[in-house]
Amino acid sequence: MGKTYYLIGKYNSILYRLSQAYISAELKEDAIGSGQYPFLLILYQQDGIPQEELSCQLSIDKGTTARAVSKLEAAGYVQRKNDPDDRRLNRVYLTTKGREIKPKLYEALEKWTHVMLQDLSQDEQSFLLRTLEKVVASVQKHHRE
Amino acid sequence: MGKTYYLIGKYNSILYRLSQAYISAELKEDAIGSGQYPFLLILYQQDGIPQEELSCQLSIDKGTTARAVSKLEAAGYVQRKNDPDDRRLNRVYLTTKGREIKPKLYEALEKWTHVMLQDLSQDEQSFLLRTLEKVVASVQKHHRE
Repeated sequence: MGKTYYLIGKYNSILYRLSQAYISAELKEDAIGSGQYPFLLILYQQDGIPQEELSCQLSIDKGTTARAVSKLEAAGYVQRKNDPDDRRLNRVYLTTKGREIKPKLYEALEKWTHVMLQDLSQDEQSFLLRTLEKVVASVQKHHRE
Repeated sequence: MGKTYYLIGKYNSILYRLSQAYISAELKEDAIGSGQYPFLLILYQQDGIPQEELSCQLSIDKGTTARAVSKLEAAGYVQRKNDPDDRRLNRVYLTTKGREIKPKLYEALEKWTHVMLQDLSQDEQSFLLRTLEKVVASVQKHHRE
């Protein structure tokens, strides 16, 4: 493995920082920080999932997850409720406000995705998607071990 | 552009968070946080570059850069000096301690890179590198505009 492969980590960090800056700027007036919107994206697919599941699916530790969900709750986007059948389960639900922000959030993500992929061919885009999927699987497998 | 391309951003975020956690854990006893090591990597290539250049090369804003460099200076890894010919230029230099940590830092990065790339063929690795390079170029071009 040559030294140049360190660059994959560097590129990954640069993309992360610039994407966070972009999304934060797009959602500035909605009081949704770059650390919070990924939780909304999961909830749009799985409303009411336990807070621990949010942590796990995003590979974000429990403390950071708890703070982000509290901010989203304070801003009115989500609500936490204990599961009636298992009081230890803390479930997170979208509010009406949380569902209403969905199109704006997806629009911001779509614009950002376009910025990232604008100079790639269709083949390069699908290759990138598949390869990153494999890399994430390797890394998550290692993380759980 | 299909919805699946949002996943590129998601994978990018997951890789970023897990890499930061990994490097922080590896360098825990050396008091180098995950927000600081990227600056050392640049300095290993270009010792004494102005602090503003560090910001620019890593796409990290000036305030965050100033805080990270201060932490590295407090821990004894770098030293800031004004340029004798242009007092407004704040240059950052590695100390002996900063140079001595280099092999350990590279070892941590190499281990992490191995975790990321372990399930990719050599062709997939080089394609990923080239493709990410293009994506970063597109994003940085947009960021400067």
